Amino acid sequence: MGQKAKYNFSVSTENVDFTLHASIESLCADMLSVAGMDARKNGISADTLMQQGRTWVLSRMAVEFDRMPEQFENFDIATWINPHTSRLLSTRNFELLDAEGKQFGRGVSQWCVIDYEKRALVSLEEVENLFDPNYYCDEPSPCDAPRKIRGIVPTVTRQRQAVYSDIDFNRHVNTMRYIRMMLNTLPIEYLTENRPLRLDAHFANECKLGQMLTINYEQRDNVSMFEIRNEDAVACTAAIEWR
Amino acid sequence: MGQKAKYNFSVSTENVDFTLHASIESLCADMLSVAGMDARKNGISADTLMQQGRTWVLSRMAVEFDRMPEQFENFDIATWINPHTSRLLSTRNFELLDAEGKQFGRGVSQWCVIDYEKRALVSLEEVENLFDPNYYCDEPSPCDAPRKIRGIVPTVTRQRQAVYSDIDFNRHVNTMRYIRMMLNTLPIEYLTENRPLRLDAHFANECKLGQMLTINYEQRDNVSMFEIRNEDAVACTAAIEWR
Repeated sequence: MGQKAKYNFSVSTENVDFTLHASIESLCADMLSVAGMDARKNGISADTLMQQGRTWVLSRMAVEFDRMPEQFENFDIATWINPHTSRLLSTRNFELLDAEGKQFGRGVSQWCVIDYEKRALVSLEEVENLFDPNYYCDEPSPCDAPRKIRGIVPTVTRQRQAVYSDIDFNRHVNTMRYIRMMLNTLPIEYLTENRPLRLDAHFANECKLGQMLTINYEQRDNVSMFEIRNEDAVACTAAIEWR
Repeated sequence: MGQKAKYNFSVSTENVDFTLHASIESLCADMLSVAGMDARKNGISADTLMQQGRTWVLSRMAVEFDRMPEQFENFDIATWINPHTSRLLSTRNFELLDAEGKQFGRGVSQWCVIDYEKRALVSLEEVENLFDPNYYCDEPSPCDAPRKIRGIVPTVTRQRQAVYSDIDFNRHVNTMRYIRMMLNTLPIEYLTENRPLRLDAHFANECKLGQMLTINYEQRDNVSMFEIRNEDAVACTAAIEWR
């Protein structure tokens, strides 16, 4: 069985928000960068899948931050993948560790493989040969798996076109941009105190360059709920529980 | 006299655009991160100035990229500051070097110190005591200093409110966000080929959270010219020369 792999980060001046702490988006993006680097190191990256006309797609993500690290603070992200227990979803876990090794954040992400000619899901069995059995690590996930988010009744609605800086190599909106759009819709007061939080996100459908996106927001007690739609479908739902 | 200092980077999955090459914004942001780290290492960072109610403000920037590095590519940014020759502007230089040490990009940035209570410029003489004379390096700038940009006659105009993810600790729009807004206004065709380019930018006035910004764009032969205004004044002008 494999080990957790650790990657070192420092909170750069470009990754802090106006509180001079790492933004939620930048920490989530660092976790996805680690996913990319670690997959590449182990021969299971999108580059490799692409040779077969396939790619990884982030389906769901849950993260918990006890605090947001300060500008210039050093931290590590540990990551590991569990043996596949689902036919379609591969689980990658994350722990965020401060300079003393104390855990201050954690996450669980669920990925699926799509054939991007057919625009269809591919069974993980079909790519299992890429995975070195010694790469799997059976340490449990550090927090609950991503939760379902349903029944949002929006009280605030914003519209925004998908632009160049939003899109990835498929010319679809990058998953992290949905998080950014949501945070930009929140009243700023939620973002001034660096409160502990849990974020659950479900990426359901793609949005394309030039599409008009609608961001719906509802505050339900201590939970901020969001839904982003393109012209045809729900693209992403998410909830931030402020703790 | 000081030496150039080198910082290592890798193009992360979150820093590429849809071409799978580092975006212009991410390379510029990496250069500003280096400015922040190197200033901090040498006791002249914004943190130190803040103890006197002052901070660094980026006034002008010029960058040249011969090519954009690919996803996962490693590169170094070398940086050095020149002895002050202006009463108000401190010059910091950058070189971008590939894994073989070959220069593929370069930049010159000009910074001023402001007193943020008085909202007034401070003479560099007043902060000169913070600078170790051995920190200055008299290697010349690697490209022409930032050029003036004048007389834009916009043919395209977009509007966009300044939101949470745009702002820095002063609750002013982060300089890199202006670059993003400009690139998002360009026809996408300019961004598909990773053409060599030179970018000149002048950051003239601040924009605040919630303000409505107007992005003006004019294409003049091989130069894309931009002006961003808030409700009162020109905030930023820039030109991208496609080579």
